[in-house]
Amino acid sequence: MCLKNRFLATASLPLHHMAGNIFGNIFRITTYGESHGKGIGVVIDGCPAGLFIDIAFIQKELDRRRPGQSDIVTQRNEDDRVQILSGVYGDISLGSPIHLFVPNKDARSGDYHHLSDAFRPSHADYTYTQKYGLRDVNGGGRSSARETIARVAAGAVAKLLLQKYQISVDAYVSQVGTIRIPEGEHVDYTLTESNIVRCPHQGTAEKMINYISEIKAAGDSVGGIISCCIQHCPVGLGEPVFDKLHADLAKAMLSINAVKGFEIGSGFEGVTMLGSLHNDIFEKTNQGIQTKTNHSGGIQGGISNGMPITFRVAFKPVSTIMKDQQSITQDGDLITLEGKGRHDPCVVPRAVPIVESMAALVIADHLLRNVNSKI
Amino acid sequence: MCLKNRFLATASLPLHHMAGNIFGNIFRITTYGESHGKGIGVVIDGCPAGLFIDIAFIQKELDRRRPGQSDIVTQRNEDDRVQILSGVYGDISLGSPIHLFVPNKDARSGDYHHLSDAFRPSHADYTYTQKYGLRDVNGGGRSSARETIARVAAGAVAKLLLQKYQISVDAYVSQVGTIRIPEGEHVDYTLTESNIVRCPHQGTAEKMINYISEIKAAGDSVGGIISCCIQHCPVGLGEPVFDKLHADLAKAMLSINAVKGFEIGSGFEGVTMLGSLHNDIFEKTNQGIQTKTNHSGGIQGGISNGMPITFRVAFKPVSTIMKDQQSITQDGDLITLEGKGRHDPCVVPRAVPIVESMAALVIADHLLRNVNSKI
Amino acid sequence: MCLKNRFLATASLPLHHMAGNIFGNIFRITTYGESHGKGIGVVIDGCPAGLFIDIAFIQKELDRRRPGQSDIVTQRNEDDRVQILSGVYGDISLGSPIHLFVPNKDARSGDYHHLSDAFRPSHADYTYTQKYGLRDVNGGGRSSARETIARVAAGAVAKLLLQKYQISVDAYVSQVGTIRIPEGEHVDYTLTESNIVRCPHQGTAEKMINYISEIKAAGDSVGGIISCCIQHCPVGLGEPVFDKLHADLAKAMLSINAVKGFEIGSGFEGVTMLGSLHNDIFEKTNQGIQTKTNHSGGIQGGISNGMPITFRVAFKPVSTIMKDQQSITQDGDLITLEGKGRHDPCVVPRAVPIVESMAALVIADHLLRNVNSKI
Amino acid sequence: MCLKNRFLATASLPLHHMAGNIFGNIFRITTYGESHGKGIGVVIDGCPAGLFIDIAFIQKELDRRRPGQSDIVTQRNEDDRVQILSGVYGDISLGSPIHLFVPNKDARSGDYHHLSDAFRPSHADYTYTQKYGLRDVNGGGRSSARETIARVAAGAVAKLLLQKYQISVDAYVSQVGTIRIPEGEHVDYTLTESNIVRCPHQGTAEKMINYISEIKAAGDSVGGIISCCIQHCPVGLGEPVFDKLHADLAKAMLSINAVKGFEIGSGFEGVTMLGSLHNDIFEKTNQGIQTKTNHSGGIQGGISNGMPITFRVAFKPVSTIMKDQQSITQDGDLITLEGKGRHDPCVVPRAVPIVESMAALVIADHLLRNVNSKI
Repeated sequence: MCLKNRFLATASLPLHHMAGNIFGNIFRITTYGESHGKGIGVVIDGCPAGLFIDIAFIQKELDRRRPGQSDIVTQRNEDDRVQILSGVYGDISLGSPIHLFVPNKDARSGDYHHLSDAFRPSHADYTYTQKYGLRDVNGGGRSSARETIARVAAGAVAKLLLQKYQISVDAYVSQVGTIRIPEGEHVDYTLTESNIVRCPHQGTAEKMINYISEIKAAGDSVGGIISCCIQHCPVGLGEPVFDKLHADLAKAMLSINAVKGFEIGSGFEGVTMLGSLHNDIFEKTNQGIQTKTNHSGGIQGGISNGMPITFRVAFKPVSTIMKDQQSITQDGDLITLEGKGRHDPCVVPRAVPIVESMAALVIADHLLRNVNSKI
Repeated sequence: MCLKNRFLATASLPLHHMAGNIFGNIFRITTYGESHGKGIGVVIDGCPAGLFIDIAFIQKELDRRRPGQSDIVTQRNEDDRVQILSGVYGDISLGSPIHLFVPNKDARSGDYHHLSDAFRPSHADYTYTQKYGLRDVNGGGRSSARETIARVAAGAVAKLLLQKYQISVDAYVSQVGTIRIPEGEHVDYTLTESNIVRCPHQGTAEKMINYISEIKAAGDSVGGIISCCIQHCPVGLGEPVFDKLHADLAKAMLSINAVKGFEIGSGFEGVTMLGSLHNDIFEKTNQGIQTKTNHSGGIQGGISNGMPITFRVAFKPVSTIMKDQQSITQDGDLITLEGKGRHDPCVVPRAVPIVESMAALVIADHLLRNVNSKI
Repeated sequence: MCLKNRFLATASLPLHHMAGNIFGNIFRITTYGESHGKGIGVVIDGCPAGLFIDIAFIQKELDRRRPGQSDIVTQRNEDDRVQILSGVYGDISLGSPIHLFVPNKDARSGDYHHLSDAFRPSHADYTYTQKYGLRDVNGGGRSSARETIARVAAGAVAKLLLQKYQISVDAYVSQVGTIRIPEGEHVDYTLTESNIVRCPHQGTAEKMINYISEIKAAGDSVGGIISCCIQHCPVGLGEPVFDKLHADLAKAMLSINAVKGFEIGSGFEGVTMLGSLHNDIFEKTNQGIQTKTNHSGGIQGGISNGMPITFRVAFKPVSTIMKDQQSITQDGDLITLEGKGRHDPCVVPRAVPIVESMAALVIADHLLRNVNSKI
Repeated sequence: MCLKNRFLATASLPLHHMAGNIFGNIFRITTYGESHGKGIGVVIDGCPAGLFIDIAFIQKELDRRRPGQSDIVTQRNEDDRVQILSGVYGDISLGSPIHLFVPNKDARSGDYHHLSDAFRPSHADYTYTQKYGLRDVNGGGRSSARETIARVAAGAVAKLLLQKYQISVDAYVSQVGTIRIPEGEHVDYTLTESNIVRCPHQGTAEKMINYISEIKAAGDSVGGIISCCIQHCPVGLGEPVFDKLHADLAKAMLSINAVKGFEIGSGFEGVTMLGSLHNDIFEKTNQGIQTKTNHSGGIQGGISNGMPITFRVAFKPVSTIMKDQQSITQDGDLITLEGKGRHDPCVVPRAVPIVESMAALVIADHLLRNVNSKI
């Protein structure tokens, strides 16, 4: 019997947090990695066994978010090659955790050292320092956009799962600054990748590219909107009342860096409509029950209704600019930050695959949550 | 040793779902109850012991969302009296689960029976039937707005916790249809409860009330926007990377019936701004470090920065209208639905306490998640 | 733009906990209620729609754990009538949360008031007081055995689900003090309910009853062992590596009051065996693949193998006795506690349905987690 | 508005599972890796920032579980060098996920190929094949003992956290086969590492080593018991009612390969005691409130009471033996399995650090869950 040595004085119990690097319930991912550490990775727990894990497709998705892919994105030169470290044998998923790892290459810590005791405006420097009591000065740690590599890698696996059910997820840039695809224009998702801004409307795309080039030359940045459409989603995904499908999509999108807004279906414009016009009338077609309009955006009562799921995501202008800005240091001293290094004048072209990935992760998780809800 | 009777044939394994009636991680609520069953309730797990549980305050909050409170809301007559069934002893929380229960009273099932085999447009009838294989015809089951009683009751307890830290949560109606508070007008939250539409700008409030009365008389419905401001929130709430504070706020808001959009800080308007103007410049004041502007909406890198947290929530026009509408039955037959019963011509006045409650639940949970993140 | 009123001094951030009243992942229960409050209840989230909810069966299960059911259990007189408050319509589950409530009746707070500032030996008085800073003196709050009502009510619903797949869960008393069913005796589960001690071996049952009666007369208490066998469990339940099926069973059992040990299959005796004898040899039978022996207890690698799942649970002698005991008060003063009130001389007869319920909850949850793990 | 392309026929929805590779609530780990893949790793989410991450200590812990460390363990030759891939900067934790990776070296797949279509007795071959529909033939995939590398690496970080609060976790071998430390003998934890069997009682250790050597020579295996004592644990850890501290310890232990039983405090022996002897009497000492005996094992009502936490874990004889065994193939054909390759004749010496690690993970998680439960 162990009697001696009971607890000692507990002068200071640990102060703590419950961290937020896990996403999803059944198809569940854990991400890790700092922008200027050894690499970025993700562990996927809950992927069914027997799925063909197409590493070429995962790499292709990563290439879509890669820096340096065109003139209008940051010139940081990372090739972002993915490695599969576990969970796959002979290209087939084993049912065990799938670990995808992307080593960092082009980490120029020097670019950031001159910032080390200043709080960059609208960056996470101040909040991270206050929260964690220290600061990973080399590029923002977990607040860096490189963190989204893990989302895209995991999202690619989710897409492979969705493809087995013919579910597609297509995002595209619909607005940059005030330049937007004209109302009522047809959007052909197959054209999204045909230009570097990822806007499937060619005339608008050209204007956007020119505008971003000007912004870049001026050392400034600008925001934009990404629209997304999920097609062939089965009826029944989404769990009342808190885990409504669009609630989980909203959280997924707002968790992406620089996102400030989300709307589904009629969104903010819908508030001015009358119910008699906004209501989507059901009709029976030879494809099954549909609605004549789709103001609901494919989700009713939090549950997918079989219509296309449509939503829009607002991105602010990125905080890193090449202009001088005033700020303060950790000690409260005034300082002028010079614009140095590399930056994305507009984040939306590279964010298209990120939006798709987060959407795919949400749909995959809800697909697995809702095999069927009835006996 | 037990050897006999190994498993039998498992002709049909159960098809299933993982339900979504639980919200929060540490301050965690489980809600239950159908609109026309015995009542609506919530169990709060994770509320610290020693908190004064002011039942009068909880009741006052419920009264703010109560039907029948004014001429511009539904006339369903529920008094919605809350009972505390566990977790509290002598008005003090015990640290054990707090159970709040609100019995249903005025359940006129007859109002809905004529609908029983039709799918109401933009309601959850179709999706629930497809998902669960049956239908609680008496008023929508969990998709009814009565479900929000549980949110407001739990939110009131969260507010009591936040009050100990002087954190306030103030929502108000900023837009109904196209009527909105003029840009730049001062908003005094103490006036929100001074009128029945809950708009703190008196002139705008009158216009809104008149407009809603017209809509009601026409048997139609209209949407609106609720703005919310959280003040005195400490720096450091929010967990990178997926549980960013505004990501959890977005999910909380989109989980409310009829919500179609969410934006934080500069939101959708911010996409047209340049980074050099959008960036919030830090300055040292005698109140500590602040930012000169607040386009970030009080959150940077997913973590609260001590500035007011400001967001806006878009509500569509409610689906229940008093006009005839075409639809189909479960068998696909065409049917004309007559507008009967009671309805809310505009949901936003009653949704103000719901928005506040969901916000309070998110902040309370993150407050408890983030006692401190450093040793 | 909201600029004023940033956060105030946060002199003392809330100290907190993440409470533990939720069990299960998909078939997930939240329990609440104090022994001497208004009642005990449970909310079940994740039960599929379309299940026949047999309230008579739930009541019958509760009657098996009811106090006052025989001479050898506590004489506290509760009839423990269950009410269904949500989630069921016409005896069929809706897929929404099922709320089961059992009001308290015979709460003699007076029995406990003489104890109010003393720490009863081996009770939770001391730990609860230290943890929560206050004390629900009326009968132990959440540490009371009445809390298990919620487990049995929820477990009955889980059993109804398991019955659809012919899975049975049978527990029985195999040992009281040193009296045990002789090695190698046949155990017929249909006899378990034929006597008040719930031992299916009649001769042993009589000895146990006599012994417990003596212990009761002496005002003392004694421990015992409950054995349990789950039959017809399909192959494949259990999730490597942490959520092994027997790991979740172990947690479920140790979460029951007074339980001090758990063993599966060969258990503690297995440590003395050689591997060549312990290994269960596979054979093909006309019922499918089986093992010749079952030292594994129906689980291999954390996953059910189709053989009966067998485990044993050790219960200590309950702490409440009718003898005088020495203790100290909150202030550290010596005090003699007199044995007063009512007590269970041996907890195992009433714990049989509790063990079955917790086992049923684990199996139901894993059944729903593992519809199938492969595409 | 997106109207076309609603969902297609969903011939076969995915069958699925919710995987179990995540452990803990606040201090939360995700593990991955197959025994014969590229390596084994763990991501720790929720470790506070500012903790000194002593990689030499982590390596030392891994060396304690390393194969090939002595004559009585398996001779597989892995040096198991740990790498830190994220979450640490200059030896200090950042608050972001800490990723620890141990590459595999000595993977002789050939050793296992002769087994590829046979089900090894009491291994997970059969259950994994049935569950996942395929089989990682190269050494057992996630069911391999190499998976525990991740537990020990994460447990080492947990120990570093506990050391800040002077909490110690000491496990040792108390029984091998029928050889056990004599009752009442003093146990000095500082001697555990002084011999290769990790039994701190020297005379007993010698007998154990000789016995295991005999068993090894015979190509057989034998079980054992590991005892563990956690000292200086503060009062108040553990969450009623399901997340009792010893319930989480039980789950942690049963999740370790080959574990068949767990008991806390008086355990299975306690069932034969009378309550009047079993109750632990409180007394006030100059070190604070203690109990005279510790049959409770340091936990009362599921909450630590400040006394040493003592528990015992039963390990079966490992299934891999060097003797011929009969079995069947996937097609049901009889086959004789020859004993080839490498094996652990007794797993307990190497399991000591694994038991300590899992215990440390549970205590660290509960420490962070329970900063304090009262306002």
